Amino acid sequence: MATIHFETDPDRYRHWKLDVQGDTATLAMNVDEEAGLAPGYALKLNSYDLGVDIELADAIQRLRFSHPDVRVLVVTSLRDRMFCAGANIFMLGKSSHPFKVNFCKFTNETRLYLEEMSRESHVKTLCALNGTASGGGYELALACDDILLVDDGSSAVSLPEVALLGVLPGTGGLTRVVDKRRVRRDHADFFSTTAEGVRGKRAVDWKLVDEVVPRSRFEARVRERAAELAEQSDRPPHTRGIELPRLARTESANGVEYTHVSLTIDRERRVANLLVRAPRDPQPTDPDGFLRAGASAWAIAAWRELDDAILHLRANELEIGLVLIRTEGDPARVLEVDHTVARHREHWLVREILLLQKRVLKRIDLTARTFYALITPGSAFAGSLFELALAADRSYMLADEDQANAIALSPLNRGLLPMSTGLSRLDARFLGASDRVAALLDHEGSLDAERALDAGLVTFAPDDIDWDDEVRLAIEERAAMSPDALTGMEASLRFVGPETMETKIFGRLSAWQNWIFTRPNSTGEKGAITVYGKAGQRPEFDWRRT
Amino acid sequence: MATIHFETDPDRYRHWKLDVQGDTATLAMNVDEEAGLAPGYALKLNSYDLGVDIELADAIQRLRFSHPDVRVLVVTSLRDRMFCAGANIFMLGKSSHPFKVNFCKFTNETRLYLEEMSRESHVKTLCALNGTASGGGYELALACDDILLVDDGSSAVSLPEVALLGVLPGTGGLTRVVDKRRVRRDHADFFSTTAEGVRGKRAVDWKLVDEVVPRSRFEARVRERAAELAEQSDRPPHTRGIELPRLARTESANGVEYTHVSLTIDRERRVANLLVRAPRDPQPTDPDGFLRAGASAWAIAAWRELDDAILHLRANELEIGLVLIRTEGDPARVLEVDHTVARHREHWLVREILLLQKRVLKRIDLTARTFYALITPGSAFAGSLFELALAADRSYMLADEDQANAIALSPLNRGLLPMSTGLSRLDARFLGASDRVAALLDHEGSLDAERALDAGLVTFAPDDIDWDDEVRLAIEERAAMSPDALTGMEASLRFVGPETMETKIFGRLSAWQNWIFTRPNSTGEKGAITVYGKAGQRPEFDWRRT
Repeated sequence: MATIHFETDPDRYRHWKLDVQGDTATLAMNVDEEAGLAPGYALKLNSYDLGVDIELADAIQRLRFSHPDVRVLVVTSLRDRMFCAGANIFMLGKSSHPFKVNFCKFTNETRLYLEEMSRESHVKTLCALNGTASGGGYELALACDDILLVDDGSSAVSLPEVALLGVLPGTGGLTRVVDKRRVRRDHADFFSTTAEGVRGKRAVDWKLVDEVVPRSRFEARVRERAAELAEQSDRPPHTRGIELPRLARTESANGVEYTHVSLTIDRERRVANLLVRAPRDPQPTDPDGFLRAGASAWAIAAWRELDDAILHLRANELEIGLVLIRTEGDPARVLEVDHTVARHREHWLVREILLLQKRVLKRIDLTARTFYALITPGSAFAGSLFELALAADRSYMLADEDQANAIALSPLNRGLLPMSTGLSRLDARFLGASDRVAALLDHEGSLDAERALDAGLVTFAPDDIDWDDEVRLAIEERAAMSPDALTGMEASLRFVGPETMETKIFGRLSAWQNWIFTRPNSTGEKGAITVYGKAGQRPEFDWRRT
Repeated sequence: MATIHFETDPDRYRHWKLDVQGDTATLAMNVDEEAGLAPGYALKLNSYDLGVDIELADAIQRLRFSHPDVRVLVVTSLRDRMFCAGANIFMLGKSSHPFKVNFCKFTNETRLYLEEMSRESHVKTLCALNGTASGGGYELALACDDILLVDDGSSAVSLPEVALLGVLPGTGGLTRVVDKRRVRRDHADFFSTTAEGVRGKRAVDWKLVDEVVPRSRFEARVRERAAELAEQSDRPPHTRGIELPRLARTESANGVEYTHVSLTIDRERRVANLLVRAPRDPQPTDPDGFLRAGASAWAIAAWRELDDAILHLRANELEIGLVLIRTEGDPARVLEVDHTVARHREHWLVREILLLQKRVLKRIDLTARTFYALITPGSAFAGSLFELALAADRSYMLADEDQANAIALSPLNRGLLPMSTGLSRLDARFLGASDRVAALLDHEGSLDAERALDAGLVTFAPDDIDWDDEVRLAIEERAAMSPDALTGMEASLRFVGPETMETKIFGRLSAWQNWIFTRPNSTGEKGAITVYGKAGQRPEFDWRRT
């Protein structure tokens, strides 16, 4: 399969039209049937593949950074009577299991980004269903604050996956229906097993949509409701944003080089080396500075690069099971940036910087690879970059003789970069011991290996004599274990404490979906996805309930 | 495979020795190698299969009802230097996927019953690890309040599943390590990938056990600690319990007949009919009455029968995808019993009755079959029996012309029979609408179909003209859908709202485990479980991380 790239920009969109008018942005789906990411399927009826979703994720990111005066986003379609038919079934039928899982993970993240944009950035979202929304199409609507459905006697919302395909809605649909929209569970049961879906008054009565509106009044009502939602936003009017230019990235057979990030692949050991560099040049010290520096500021550039590197690993380096995270440079520079960000976090742009960093770190938490942080002299595991060590499954810190090797915390470790559970990584690490976390955060200055180990901030602190063997062994052992068992184990150990709608989607719904995707009833020779659309063929099921 | 039976009693135990001395019960594992539930494997080293766990579940149930003066349970082993080696691998290797999943579900329920017995019945639990506890053996210890490990230079606790078998610990181990015992996530990562486990001081430092004790002082310390735990109990001294005799059950090719419950199988439609009858005779009206009536009281007998019927369905009727729940009899009789139970719920026996009903209803929530409640004239869907309708995925209530068909609530619907989430089924049904729930509970008297539908207590209320067709169609459609998709869907829709350690174990850990069990890396020809113990063979993995 060709390498998948996650960067795009509106000039290159094939499937969406982004239009900004004052405080209202409209993102309209108009999928180019012939522009699928891979050959072999046509994206009919506004069905989507990963390429369509990469554009959606890009649009959301740009609304955040480049359009600070946008206060409401209307998501709609340019097709008549069809909003979106969901993920393309033929694409799914042709895809490998790892691809399907990765695809669902990315689309889930994108939908959560829509919700985060509403909740945290106050860009409210309205889904204007000018036609039927099926499966992933309705799930996209569910990720918006409000859903208006045209009432034309035929347009419906539906989750036909169970009935037609023998799989689950893969983008949070079941969870959002009952947990977010609080559709009664028995109504949800009927709805999720009824391929044709629900429309009109019942769709409103059951809370599946917020409103149904006759076609003649639909556009006016969408404008009116969008204006109401815009009122709820605190985003500043008449403000200029910053551009997000293409990343400086050089791809080779052995990895990707960026300005601040370096990803090198060791195929023989099935290990990736992920290096993040601290800022080398002076960084902005206030919001105006960030506005002037734009996307070249380390606090944006390094994290966009890191995000791209993680996505590249996920999609294009499937056999790499272990990621060794290293950092390099002057930790004081990281701490300076962190302090600036923490101090000015109410400013719209600084808020977006913090949210970007949060999303990238969450992307790591949700990546099905082992992460080890390797903390050696010359590294910069401080503040926001120390979150990388906290996100890792383990950390090894060299107890060097002259105690130069050190880590440090910053205000950003104080709950400003929370996990999907809502907990900071420190609170999750020391679950139920908030005193201990508070004491650590009150500590000024850096900690050498012995003190970091005592404080519980690193897992192991071998000395110079043991370091090489201990780390080598830990790498070799990990790389030899069943990749599936490690994925399930990491997903269970990483998310301690409370569960949220977000963790439910990734932990419960996605885990079940992964299981279902491997079962012959969906993807076997006679499975429902396999025979879908093949004339005269019906799926054959192993009826044993499990 | 031979029919699996879930009833046993201490006289028939092959694998455990239950000994009661004053306020202390000791349950000692001593697995009979040759007494596996199925042929083809030997239960060496105190490894277990479903048969071993059925005895454990029985012992817990009897401690509740027959030994009210027991205040602490010591779980230990009669083997030297080996507590328990966990689930038998050769048994797992020979088992079908549905069997493995059902086995894990039952063992998970049993471990949760241990925890519930401590929390709700105040029988505190101490695990005395007189030798190594591996995998499921350590997971059994994790379900106890306190873990003492002998410190003999070799006995360790371990979760070797990931490293040795390419699967997860299947009985809550990962979740309990980080969420219950709050072992730090990176320590848990190391521990769960280290086949030989952890012992001695590190086991205590990492919170994997509560105490390590030299062999010479082990027995004395166990006695001492048991006495301390017994102090925490409120169970009444010198009280006589009630016996739990064998159930009156008649098994035939088409189902099982009990005194109050009837299970009939319609193999052609893949449907089970589950009928629960209201009490026919006068029932106890106070705790003394319950003590006199013993296990023959409807509030115990009907629910033990229902539990057995559900377990029978799960284990022995795999192809039955849909269960139609009906009730029959005088609803007033059910309400009378409910009122007695609610009024006297502080009494030790009444408390156990309530907990029994709660566990049976939770067993239904966790059963991977669709449940429809069918409410017709002559039924007794009132109070505790109405919980069956609330537990169902949908309910159909006949809107009969003379409005004789009715349902009713009782104090037991008021949060006394909570789900695994901690919510009552009414609170889960109307998530976030506690006013509405309160108003429903304040309503005195029964509701006919129209009012029940208005109140949101039933899903559909067809009239006499529509009933037959609507119900028939709903049954046929359901029975035709992919059983896997339905399992994943129901598991997602049933547990709305908060998550608990319990729902995490079933929703997250078990769902991942199910996925891993289907993957060739564990159960394929070269999978880790398949080649386990075969000389000279090593597993071969598809290295793609998913």
